[in-house]
Amino acid sequence: MLIHDANLQLALDMVGVFVFALSGGLVAVRKRLDVVGVIVLAWVAGLGGGTIRDVLIGAVPPVGVSDWRQMAAAAAAGLLTFVFHPGFGRISRFVRVLDALGLAVFAVGGSLKALGYGVTPITAVVVGVVTAVGGGMMRDVLAGQVPEVLRHELYAVPALLGSTIVVVASKTEHLNVVVVWLAVALVFAVRMGAVMLDLNAPKPLRTGDRS
Amino acid sequence: MLIHDANLQLALDMVGVFVFALSGGLVAVRKRLDVVGVIVLAWVAGLGGGTIRDVLIGAVPPVGVSDWRQMAAAAAAGLLTFVFHPGFGRISRFVRVLDALGLAVFAVGGSLKALGYGVTPITAVVVGVVTAVGGGMMRDVLAGQVPEVLRHELYAVPALLGSTIVVVASKTEHLNVVVVWLAVALVFAVRMGAVMLDLNAPKPLRTGDRS
Amino acid sequence: MLIHDANLQLALDMVGVFVFALSGGLVAVRKRLDVVGVIVLAWVAGLGGGTIRDVLIGAVPPVGVSDWRQMAAAAAAGLLTFVFHPGFGRISRFVRVLDALGLAVFAVGGSLKALGYGVTPITAVVVGVVTAVGGGMMRDVLAGQVPEVLRHELYAVPALLGSTIVVVASKTEHLNVVVVWLAVALVFAVRMGAVMLDLNAPKPLRTGDRS
Repeated sequence: MLIHDANLQLALDMVGVFVFALSGGLVAVRKRLDVVGVIVLAWVAGLGGGTIRDVLIGAVPPVGVSDWRQMAAAAAAGLLTFVFHPGFGRISRFVRVLDALGLAVFAVGGSLKALGYGVTPITAVVVGVVTAVGGGMMRDVLAGQVPEVLRHELYAVPALLGSTIVVVASKTEHLNVVVVWLAVALVFAVRMGAVMLDLNAPKPLRTGDRS
Repeated sequence: MLIHDANLQLALDMVGVFVFALSGGLVAVRKRLDVVGVIVLAWVAGLGGGTIRDVLIGAVPPVGVSDWRQMAAAAAAGLLTFVFHPGFGRISRFVRVLDALGLAVFAVGGSLKALGYGVTPITAVVVGVVTAVGGGMMRDVLAGQVPEVLRHELYAVPALLGSTIVVVASKTEHLNVVVVWLAVALVFAVRMGAVMLDLNAPKPLRTGDRS
Repeated sequence: MLIHDANLQLALDMVGVFVFALSGGLVAVRKRLDVVGVIVLAWVAGLGGGTIRDVLIGAVPPVGVSDWRQMAAAAAAGLLTFVFHPGFGRISRFVRVLDALGLAVFAVGGSLKALGYGVTPITAVVVGVVTAVGGGMMRDVLAGQVPEVLRHELYAVPALLGSTIVVVASKTEHLNVVVVWLAVALVFAVRMGAVMLDLNAPKPLRTGDRS
């Protein structure tokens, strides 16, 4: 079945690892870390989400410490960031785009992998979201900044949407490669739309607001 | 045996998840996060401790990503916090009370679950304490504040007391529902007493103290 | 075989737990935490790396919550720090030395344990590095400071060196107790050399540098 399509899983994982690792490297550059710090933060951002996913579904040792292709992709992204970052221009904006792409492929890929391990649909959805937000969360905590997922724009919602789509498609026998990539595109589009339109989820009412 | 009493385990877990999730939501409100941030922090606080517990004892996938009742309780607590928080009055104090109750049920419930997985008594005690402090620790780290467990009042000690009581009771064949709830009440009472009397554990001597 | 030498593994673990726990206790003292906070941070620093290692290789419950000797060593280190720290003199420098020693024994011991669980060589190397940097990383995140491993001196590199040496020695049938302790000494020497000579890995170029 598609769920066990190792090539598709690897493609989703590799894209996610690479772009999240770039985002980690860029955050490290912005924090003025040295080359090792850049690579470490690239690893954490790129491999963290998948490692949490694999621990949660019992797939140990996790790919983040065992698949040399994914580890090499994360290290390469870190090095690339370190060498070429002055050409990247506005770092913050670029981090956002990479982050959105990683969010999309990890939400979808994380749910697919969890389904392959025989978990229930709701677990597959949650594991997908955790995969998508976990690496960026670890990146931000280590770098000493409030995690993106807690900040003001829609972040976890598109991941939840993508995970739900592939899990529902799987359970209703509609899952195929086209659906998978459409789900990835949809998550990316919704997230980027939220960033560009500066769409925010509602905030709590403020009592005794001084503004 | 009592140790495998699924209803008791679920009751302890549900109370703990709900009150810790409320505490997470309130911290998020205080940090001015949006509705998604409030729910995410409610989830982390409510489901984090049990997730760490389950990973440590090999119970994967953890209930925090697989039991819809606990996930719904955490989400409901997050939404409640978001909608009704202006009526909660002094947020900080309320967080402390919820935190104490969650500490109590998670210390006891965490040790009970660990015993059910056949670990040694010392492991059951430690896993209980980790369950009790884990969610709040993750909540505070993500929110960018020093974890409650490292701050000035007695926090880990009552949890250690509660976990020890149920593990000793279990090994001496005195464990029953009354003992379980008495242990919960004791942890809660000790923790609240420490908060209200402002009891602190001793601090290190200061050399060259300027005060 | 040497890989399953329980005494050697225990010796490496005990040294690492004790010195990392001292480092955790000293950081806690510097942050003016109370006695419980000191012991908690000693535990996290001392037992955190090995706990992450065991979760990654599927050795649950991890020794960090099950081996009373290691837990006692961490608690003793925390208490020692709390009582005697005024005699420790310059805390920051002492933390660095302890950290270097813990890094050395955990990198080597972590890789040895992973090899004993039948993982691939590359996984054994990575798990060794994660064991070495994990406890200090958790210590620093909880204490609200940027992790040592992301700061300016060579930190992860000596760990990588030590892990690689024992894994290569194991795969080429050259592994024995002398090689193990030489690898430990080498990691320690390289790390201390980096600290004393203030050797830093290269930093990213700064665009629009104002210095």
